[in-house]
Amino acid sequence: MLKLNSIVINSKLKKIKLIVMDFDGILTDGGIYLGNDNSSFRRFDVKDGMGIKILQKNSINIALISGSNSDVIDKRANHLGIKIIRKGVINKAKSLIEIQEFLKLRKNEILFLGDDVNDITILPYVGLFFTPSNGHKSCKIKANYIGKCKGGRGFVREIGDKLLLAKGYNPYKSFESRNEFSD
Amino acid sequence: MLKLNSIVINSKLKKIKLIVMDFDGILTDGGIYLGNDNSSFRRFDVKDGMGIKILQKNSINIALISGSNSDVIDKRANHLGIKIIRKGVINKAKSLIEIQEFLKLRKNEILFLGDDVNDITILPYVGLFFTPSNGHKSCKIKANYIGKCKGGRGFVREIGDKLLLAKGYNPYKSFESRNEFSD
Amino acid sequence: MLKLNSIVINSKLKKIKLIVMDFDGILTDGGIYLGNDNSSFRRFDVKDGMGIKILQKNSINIALISGSNSDVIDKRANHLGIKIIRKGVINKAKSLIEIQEFLKLRKNEILFLGDDVNDITILPYVGLFFTPSNGHKSCKIKANYIGKCKGGRGFVREIGDKLLLAKGYNPYKSFESRNEFSD
Amino acid sequence: MLKLNSIVINSKLKKIKLIVMDFDGILTDGGIYLGNDNSSFRRFDVKDGMGIKILQKNSINIALISGSNSDVIDKRANHLGIKIIRKGVINKAKSLIEIQEFLKLRKNEILFLGDDVNDITILPYVGLFFTPSNGHKSCKIKANYIGKCKGGRGFVREIGDKLLLAKGYNPYKSFESRNEFSD
Repeated sequence: MLKLNSIVINSKLKKIKLIVMDFDGILTDGGIYLGNDNSSFRRFDVKDGMGIKILQKNSINIALISGSNSDVIDKRANHLGIKIIRKGVINKAKSLIEIQEFLKLRKNEILFLGDDVNDITILPYVGLFFTPSNGHKSCKIKANYIGKCKGGRGFVREIGDKLLLAKGYNPYKSFESRNEFSD
Repeated sequence: MLKLNSIVINSKLKKIKLIVMDFDGILTDGGIYLGNDNSSFRRFDVKDGMGIKILQKNSINIALISGSNSDVIDKRANHLGIKIIRKGVINKAKSLIEIQEFLKLRKNEILFLGDDVNDITILPYVGLFFTPSNGHKSCKIKANYIGKCKGGRGFVREIGDKLLLAKGYNPYKSFESRNEFSD
Repeated sequence: MLKLNSIVINSKLKKIKLIVMDFDGILTDGGIYLGNDNSSFRRFDVKDGMGIKILQKNSINIALISGSNSDVIDKRANHLGIKIIRKGVINKAKSLIEIQEFLKLRKNEILFLGDDVNDITILPYVGLFFTPSNGHKSCKIKANYIGKCKGGRGFVREIGDKLLLAKGYNPYKSFESRNEFSD
Repeated sequence: MLKLNSIVINSKLKKIKLIVMDFDGILTDGGIYLGNDNSSFRRFDVKDGMGIKILQKNSINIALISGSNSDVIDKRANHLGIKIIRKGVINKAKSLIEIQEFLKLRKNEILFLGDDVNDITILPYVGLFFTPSNGHKSCKIKANYIGKCKGGRGFVREIGDKLLLAKGYNPYKSFESRNEFSD
């Protein structure tokens, strides 16, 4: 892939119906908090969560594909109403093709957000590939667009706003939403 | 609303009797820590907490309106002696009007602190609306003032000091306070 | 107090036998992590901890005075071998005078590290008062020295190194220490 | 030791078969999260973890030597398949020599990553010593190379990529890996 200018990016974003996201480093800030007992934590960003809800309200579907098998993935997905989740994945390209076929989508209707070398296998199967400002160099080389924000620190919201703007929606207008979870 | 110059801001701050705050991203840094069990955490700033105590001592009332339903809201509010809390709110404007009527306050006696698109509905019902330096663009467009500090990282204290100064109080003088909680 | 030039600071540091520290914002980064259960966390810096051990090995005594009543204070103090702890303190000056009398120290043998308005009451009773780079303006106005580091992010180590250098010790030489705790 | 130019560094990196790492401040960001109960947490970086897996796949061995005795060390080591762990170590040089003899390695086949004064004792026993951008001054004085990244924030990955490049491997090519843990 090549870096694309903003006119081409926006033209391609108009066709996107599904955003597939890596988990660690995209929906989280890449931190894994491990306890001296068996507990562990991930950190999420509340504005990224709001972005996902606005995308869903505008009929953009969201899917998660993660190499991790953590229960935290299900918890956060559940909070955000994300239904399509692939955990403990070795071959991300295979998972992506399954999701694509399940949703009967074409390649150019899928945007992938990834930040490390195990995300690159999906490149031949998506229309666009974006990486956060702190993505690994392997992703920065290949990405069509490098975000201004870090993963788990506004990147998902940045891309959500960008997608909505490309589709002619206004991501800055008032939006009523109860946070549908009690964390 | 429009950005206001500092003379107008200070003139309006003199009338403020109540600060209504969003929770996530204002009193916290916008992070949600989720565990592999059912636990979750939020991060608060001890200097923001001190700021709220000083405001209360100077007869400024504090209220929280949050879309979240988390138990952490009650815990932090309890630590800080915040009595007026609206949780799991979909329509923030409606909650704000209820609080305004309950406290028999006028619109120009209320300052709202918010950082995302679900906060904008309150705009017609408050005298001033401030957002932190990392507020969403939707809030930055509408805010009367954009703080120098990030949410949960000194923004509440910054605004507290600003309000006290506008009212002719000295926010830098010695203040004796036991932290009235044991966390 | 006034800002002092580095020659005067070093001259005064030579006499210091006790460092009295505020807890939140000095030994921690000022964050309070609250859970949806009754748990809470503070974040400490491992290099600050090493600094305290090196100070102790060089016969500098350490004391903590905190407005908070958290059990975390005892846990961290215990890890670091800090014996003198005053918790839940309203009047920090009173606590400081008690410690001074208990240790039979003179005013100019005490360095205080604080970062907020409730720390300023101790000023008449100490030889030196330092605040971190992110200390509240009230402390920055009064401090003899403003650190380069933030609280809980190397400030205690920065001051420890500065004190050892002033006393003619080398804070950069190899130091063998097992971390005497299992967290 | 002296700072070495990049040609000499790369020449020395070609011989490295083992990376010995300090734990706190290298594999973590130097933060220790302590709870009001007996729990504690460390923060790890998922990209550092990926870097270790890629090193292992390329036959680079990894060992941990820590002054801490925390159970979190074992947990993270287990996630990453690190088999050689020395905990609660007072004399790091002694532990390093034991590992060197156990693996039958020569001095110039070992790279050490450390960030504080208790790491310096190992200097006579390793071929290369690197420290992160936020390493203590004592380490920056002695290190052959100072990383661009902070400890626990990409430093291990930075060095892993640097080592692979020196050995003629490509650290940016697609890598399939299931995260072999469920945190």
